[in-house]
Amino acid sequence: MPAQARRTRKSAASPPVLRKFRGGFRWDQVELEPYKLSARRGGDFRCASRQVLIGKRGERVRFHLRYFELDARGYTSFERHLHSHVVIGVRGSGKVRVGRDEYQLRPMDTIYIGPDMPHQLRATGTGKFGFFCVVDAKRDRPRSLAKP
Amino acid sequence: MPAQARRTRKSAASPPVLRKFRGGFRWDQVELEPYKLSARRGGDFRCASRQVLIGKRGERVRFHLRYFELDARGYTSFERHLHSHVVIGVRGSGKVRVGRDEYQLRPMDTIYIGPDMPHQLRATGTGKFGFFCVVDAKRDRPRSLAKP
Repeated sequence: MPAQARRTRKSAASPPVLRKFRGGFRWDQVELEPYKLSARRGGDFRCASRQVLIGKRGERVRFHLRYFELDARGYTSFERHLHSHVVIGVRGSGKVRVGRDEYQLRPMDTIYIGPDMPHQLRATGTGKFGFFCVVDAKRDRPRSLAKP
Repeated sequence: MPAQARRTRKSAASPPVLRKFRGGFRWDQVELEPYKLSARRGGDFRCASRQVLIGKRGERVRFHLRYFELDARGYTSFERHLHSHVVIGVRGSGKVRVGRDEYQLRPMDTIYIGPDMPHQLRATGTGKFGFFCVVDAKRDRPRSLAKP
């Protein structure tokens, strides 16, 4: 059944979606995407990728689970938006800037980034920095805070 | 500021909440709780604990992040509810039963469990089985499917 049909038929069963980890921080049947799908969103970022683990296949969830990865010296956009983030470090080490503060993130460290807080993640070690990011399924578009 | 005040003042800043991992699958300033806080909910379970990483301190989130851990031979209630779960294995190995099917979970394996799907998690190795579980902040109460 197409995902769209599943979403509109509330009474139908919503089968489990299993994403097996296959090592190297890749999961079966999960596409490796560019970090920003649309250049229109703007923002300055470097060496970043995204995998949407849960939320793209018609799962009935109010939140999405994504895995982001930054190469050494990579970083995400410095941005703000009205929705919140929850970030869980899982690979290597990095820093997250939230407003004027910075926090070190190592595997299993967790941080909540509240609405409208300017934030940016950055790899700080010699290897890759990977993290889960949980976010509302319905959310506003990020606004870049990069200087033009 | 008390959490309640933060929740009601929408215009106020919502500061970051950092949960540093301190090893042994414990996090700074996170309480280790019994798996079920209320026995009134019923259910048959064994050797299970819970840590709420994000969601209990007035964070403005529509979902909560929890870490559950089962000792060897431990299991959660066999139950169903209208909200969905997203489970990420992080420690040891276990199985999740969803309806009539079973899925093996090892670290970084991820599974979506849809609304009203009967489910139960179980440790299958010789050690502990730990997993993150993301869930809607507003959710219905689980109904136990254990035989009386």
